Amino acid sequence: MVGGRICGLSVRDVRFPTSLGGHGSDAMHTDPDYSAAYVILETDVGDGLKGYGITFTLGRGTEVVVCAVNALAHHVLSKDLRDIVGDFRGFYRQLTSDGQLRWIGPEKGAVHLATAAVLNAVWDLWAKQEGKPLWKLLVDMKYCRKVKLVKKKELCTEALKDGWTRFKVKVGADLQDDIRRCRLIRDMIGPEKILMMDANQRWDVPEAVEWMSKLAEFKPLWIEEPTSPDDILGHATISKALVPLGIGVATGEQCHNRVIFKQLLQAKALQFLQIDSCRLGSVNENLSVLLMAKKFEIPVCPHAGGVGLCELVQHLIIFDFISVSASLKNRMCEYVDHLHEHFRYPVIIKKASYMPPKDAGYSTEMKTDSVQKHQYPDGDVWKKLLAAQGN
Amino acid sequence: MVGGRICGLSVRDVRFPTSLGGHGSDAMHTDPDYSAAYVILETDVGDGLKGYGITFTLGRGTEVVVCAVNALAHHVLSKDLRDIVGDFRGFYRQLTSDGQLRWIGPEKGAVHLATAAVLNAVWDLWAKQEGKPLWKLLVDMKYCRKVKLVKKKELCTEALKDGWTRFKVKVGADLQDDIRRCRLIRDMIGPEKILMMDANQRWDVPEAVEWMSKLAEFKPLWIEEPTSPDDILGHATISKALVPLGIGVATGEQCHNRVIFKQLLQAKALQFLQIDSCRLGSVNENLSVLLMAKKFEIPVCPHAGGVGLCELVQHLIIFDFISVSASLKNRMCEYVDHLHEHFRYPVIIKKASYMPPKDAGYSTEMKTDSVQKHQYPDGDVWKKLLAAQGN
Repeated sequence: MVGGRICGLSVRDVRFPTSLGGHGSDAMHTDPDYSAAYVILETDVGDGLKGYGITFTLGRGTEVVVCAVNALAHHVLSKDLRDIVGDFRGFYRQLTSDGQLRWIGPEKGAVHLATAAVLNAVWDLWAKQEGKPLWKLLVDMKYCRKVKLVKKKELCTEALKDGWTRFKVKVGADLQDDIRRCRLIRDMIGPEKILMMDANQRWDVPEAVEWMSKLAEFKPLWIEEPTSPDDILGHATISKALVPLGIGVATGEQCHNRVIFKQLLQAKALQFLQIDSCRLGSVNENLSVLLMAKKFEIPVCPHAGGVGLCELVQHLIIFDFISVSASLKNRMCEYVDHLHEHFRYPVIIKKASYMPPKDAGYSTEMKTDSVQKHQYPDGDVWKKLLAAQGN
Repeated sequence: MVGGRICGLSVRDVRFPTSLGGHGSDAMHTDPDYSAAYVILETDVGDGLKGYGITFTLGRGTEVVVCAVNALAHHVLSKDLRDIVGDFRGFYRQLTSDGQLRWIGPEKGAVHLATAAVLNAVWDLWAKQEGKPLWKLLVDMKYCRKVKLVKKKELCTEALKDGWTRFKVKVGADLQDDIRRCRLIRDMIGPEKILMMDANQRWDVPEAVEWMSKLAEFKPLWIEEPTSPDDILGHATISKALVPLGIGVATGEQCHNRVIFKQLLQAKALQFLQIDSCRLGSVNENLSVLLMAKKFEIPVCPHAGGVGLCELVQHLIIFDFISVSASLKNRMCEYVDHLHEHFRYPVIIKKASYMPPKDAGYSTEMKTDSVQKHQYPDGDVWKKLLAAQGN
């Protein structure tokens, strides 16, 4: 039975010193330390089950999100899990409509990332109490339109056909160098394989159109994050110019809420929609975006990588495939083979495909030892690094 | 001479227990404690001049903004003020493009409010070193297009003609009650005086159109914040429906950056633009919005009230009048007679008009005694209140 009073909420600042190896850097994020604000919920049930929730961050600023989680804690503590999930819409609204806290959002920035971490923990706890992986909990919900129940095997077989045939190149820093590298890659992979480009918000609107027109000869499937994630009409202008050249616009990893996604869809501003499991307000808000994308017939290709993003988002794409879109056409999900060893239920990839997770929960739980070592600034890893830097 | 190395940055969490008196509450913000993250900058010049910067908050969450200010501090400390203002664009970009911190924004939410507080302090310090009120510093800048230099007196005379002839009513909670109250107020003020309505984001898009169509008979000049501040296309739909009924859309106090304002203007989504001196990235970003508004011929009517918003924004509207719009048509600036006693250079209102401030700086400095008493949670005011609440 689902239930139990939430009697404990703790939050940790966990950072992995990835900037030392230059992992995951791009034109705008040059020295990321992949990090997470990591929330742990406990109940008074005595079944030993805890809920774990993360939101992904890049190092500095994680302490700001931790602070925001603590500011939200009073909305969660002493609530019964049964009441939360019984009126999840009401609970979601309570968190995002706090009459004082909403001023520092609303529904954006640090406080929304904190909301995601807290709600991710609630979903993990709920799925664990139900004894199901999160994707199965979602698929079994009656209110979700079940298009058809495709066997899990089909997921893998479809993706297997592709194998690793998709490549992404970062662009936007230097046009001549981009031309050189894109030509090299296209020559290497041949004309049939899929090439994607990612500008990480480097351009303004006319610049994006001009630059990509010059890269069109290399037949990219999409240009990702061509400009400010807030510029819906800018994305629409870029789409209008590039779609005739065969290039779609992909964006979403820094879109801060469903209202922005709604407008991107309304304005025909994107051809590929990239949800982020930790920036939107958890499963709740991601579901609303999946349903909107279905309505507009736009494929969802989630952002992943980071810390735990692959672990979380696999539940959402499996749900999307089984219960919403029922299609793999033009759909893919990022994968980076990095930092999975810190998770208790890491993703399993076989033949270039995510395998549906079978453990109960949202795959959000990290290994205790990893958390201890990487806590900032007191974990062993950071104590040593900071001492070496003379801090 | 302008200059000096920034050798100190401190930030305070200052809260006024305004919720006790029910001041400033609305449909979405029911119990605000008007508060500020208050930044103090010191240089090594030895002239005794400090820069003071605030951002406005509503109580809970101020500690999150304080935390974000501390996360930004390393971009400011040890910099020379001359170098900062010599390449202010570069400095602004440095703050908003921090490769790790921008993930928790970018340019929105807690980290952007913190940016505003820090930059407000920089502008205050600069204006003080120049010995000018901020509006005069701006007016004297050569890069600003000077339309004409209207004598200050004209500002006051123009506004005096109006006196207090403008009234605003909060709507959105109950339609029948709104009709009753709007009828009462319109009957009271007569057909000539200006009535404005404010929904504080309560509605979705069709609801806003339907509700306001039913309040149109009371001839409101505008409906303020009819829906989510992120919904640019929604505001455009509402504008399109209401402008033929003689009702304009006003919004902006929760628009989080210039990119959103750009789109609101492009989409014809508002007829009155309400900047906020503490939500946007200080004077820098507000200037870009004032110039865009001029280009689209949309009047700027700033949001004020709160803590210190009137003190700050008066500089911006005076600059707008003298150097950008050169017009008072359809322009007004909110005023609430509240909490000014805590400021060292409070606004002066005569005959329903803001008087141009004459003291050097951005009017951001609070009285030391007020700050001490209202610091959260250790100031006397809060120690007593929290003890009374048994915390």
